[in-house]
Amino acid sequence: VAPVGRAAVGIVGAGQLARMLCQAAVGLGITPRLLAAVADDSAALVDPDVLLGDPGSLDALRALASTCAVTTFDHELVDPEHLVALEAEGHVLRPGAATAAVVVDKRRQRELIRDLGIVGPIWRALPNDAGEAAAGVRAHGGEHGWPVVLKAARGGYDGRGVRVVAGPSEVDGAVASMGAAPLLVEEGIDIAFEIAVQVVRRPGGEMVVYPVVETVQRDGICVEVVAPAAVEWEVALLAEGAARRLAEAIDLVGLLAVELFVDPHGRVTVNELAVRPHNSAHHTIEACETSQFENHLRAVLDLPLGATTLRAPHAVMVNVLGPPDGSDPADGLARALAVPGAHVHLYAKGAKAGRKLGHVTVCGDDADDVRARARRAAGALVGEG
Amino acid sequence: VAPVGRAAVGIVGAGQLARMLCQAAVGLGITPRLLAAVADDSAALVDPDVLLGDPGSLDALRALASTCAVTTFDHELVDPEHLVALEAEGHVLRPGAATAAVVVDKRRQRELIRDLGIVGPIWRALPNDAGEAAAGVRAHGGEHGWPVVLKAARGGYDGRGVRVVAGPSEVDGAVASMGAAPLLVEEGIDIAFEIAVQVVRRPGGEMVVYPVVETVQRDGICVEVVAPAAVEWEVALLAEGAARRLAEAIDLVGLLAVELFVDPHGRVTVNELAVRPHNSAHHTIEACETSQFENHLRAVLDLPLGATTLRAPHAVMVNVLGPPDGSDPADGLARALAVPGAHVHLYAKGAKAGRKLGHVTVCGDDADDVRARARRAAGALVGEG
Repeated sequence: VAPVGRAAVGIVGAGQLARMLCQAAVGLGITPRLLAAVADDSAALVDPDVLLGDPGSLDALRALASTCAVTTFDHELVDPEHLVALEAEGHVLRPGAATAAVVVDKRRQRELIRDLGIVGPIWRALPNDAGEAAAGVRAHGGEHGWPVVLKAARGGYDGRGVRVVAGPSEVDGAVASMGAAPLLVEEGIDIAFEIAVQVVRRPGGEMVVYPVVETVQRDGICVEVVAPAAVEWEVALLAEGAARRLAEAIDLVGLLAVELFVDPHGRVTVNELAVRPHNSAHHTIEACETSQFENHLRAVLDLPLGATTLRAPHAVMVNVLGPPDGSDPADGLARALAVPGAHVHLYAKGAKAGRKLGHVTVCGDDADDVRARARRAAGALVGEG
Repeated sequence: VAPVGRAAVGIVGAGQLARMLCQAAVGLGITPRLLAAVADDSAALVDPDVLLGDPGSLDALRALASTCAVTTFDHELVDPEHLVALEAEGHVLRPGAATAAVVVDKRRQRELIRDLGIVGPIWRALPNDAGEAAAGVRAHGGEHGWPVVLKAARGGYDGRGVRVVAGPSEVDGAVASMGAAPLLVEEGIDIAFEIAVQVVRRPGGEMVVYPVVETVQRDGICVEVVAPAAVEWEVALLAEGAARRLAEAIDLVGLLAVELFVDPHGRVTVNELAVRPHNSAHHTIEACETSQFENHLRAVLDLPLGATTLRAPHAVMVNVLGPPDGSDPADGLARALAVPGAHVHLYAKGAKAGRKLGHVTVCGDDADDVRARARRAAGALVGEG
């Protein structure tokens, strides 16, 4: 327990991940201190201990970290230099600056994956000069085939900072559209389906792994998660093993989500890493013995981790994205709750087309029935059906 | 959704029940507005929307109710006259003033039970004059046998306001110890074990009932809840049926907990009613498809109710009461979380001997194993083992 005036845990950011961390913190008897950019951000609406400030500013980060026993993060867009500075001042960051520095940079992620002997897409870093970058993209496509995937090394999420390039004629436009960010290019994997696995690790090395899930993406945004993934046991074993190796290699404290591709031949490649609670594990709130949010808190507080076992044979999580007409999913709450077994999570964020505003999870015995109910409830929230 | 500046739901009180209501409200996308007597009360520590004020004061209640679409309660000690006044002013109370008036008064509870043809202990109201009250107690014992149970009609909970009177020689002292409150006396039931059942009801009459649980009491305080209760189906049916009849009779909106005695011959008698989330249903957070807290909120917001099905064959909830040495259960958190499957809930209340400071729930396949683990985790929190 933190001394008076000092929070047990600080959270940089106040989006829906922080909101669900706060919800999990209630049971542990603690009130996280949030660093929120705006007073009505999702988590700030459910937490009385909020510092208003820019998570991009070192001063604001210091104001949080210096009044919290441990500081964690609900996003990865914090400047790694700031994290290094805070640790040098003696503040406890979990995950730490070195971990974040690897994960925030997709090129360093790729190097790590390669160094650990884990299979990832074939990639190359691109020079900063646009002309040279375009030449690199063409060379990559020439060697490994088209399409290729052009990525910003930093700052991308939910499909942003990622562009599929179908052939040589699209290269210049694609490079120009990415702006000045450092870039990399990867082979375009023929994706049969995508899976994800999450591992949680304590400072001492204790680890737990959640059962592998299938993630369904649309336009680069996760729309549905199916637990457990209907994959061969070797695929699950490989994904879990890769996640454990990665967690140890980056000296993880907290939750690491690993997203992987499976191609039509069953080849598994690691796509991306994230060190924070992750959309691919929202189902764990109801579907697993211990939620990803509680386990992330337990890990950063150096408390024993909870079991990750599924509590039902099947679970499906469907994201609630803001409908094109800008209407608010909260208006469909009654219809969604009328769907049997629908666990609705609304984030109390301003409605905006395409924005993640909530999710629905359904657990049960029959995979098809569970999926149908989760979709029906999510559909009710966005005005369908 | 409530208009700007108006909360969707107000809660009178900020104890652990309000705390767990706030936790459940996160998923529904709402932030309850609390009326808290002190700023560091259990729920006020996890909710940014708090009015400070005395829940006993009409002005404070009005300040809450007039800024909330619906107002509900985490305790039953509010003056029923105030509730009548608030409803007359047009504020929406759920449960309403008429419901509360019945339940707050144990004599009216007894009359209702009798009028509905439900079996309760044989009782009589006592005159306010101490000498006449004592005569009434003696007469009751003479007619129905000793011991008898002397009860304050109002304000008792967790064993307060209840006194077992073994024989005629104890009567005068017992009556004197109860103070000036209106009293009643009941036959002393030979209790083999105690059970409880909870029903949740919406304004339109939709109802759901949680599976009957066994409650283990020590010194009038619930220490353990076992779900489901190991009772004959007829006993469960009777308890559930009584709860439904009572809920309809009092025009319940929200959660009603009914506590019942079972005697060695299997005779079931209704002991007491409470219209609020209840200690006998804390296990529902993990053990049931929908928790009592979410269902209470759904009911008062007039939203479809969630399923009450058990998610595991067995669940046991053990209360964490402040140890005699005044130590804080939070100090044992790491040891408690090390117990497999232990779901710990700490209320962040000041440690005090005998005070309810938290609870632990364990779910699983084997009743004995589940109980042993729940006790071990709760024991770790209070410095045992």
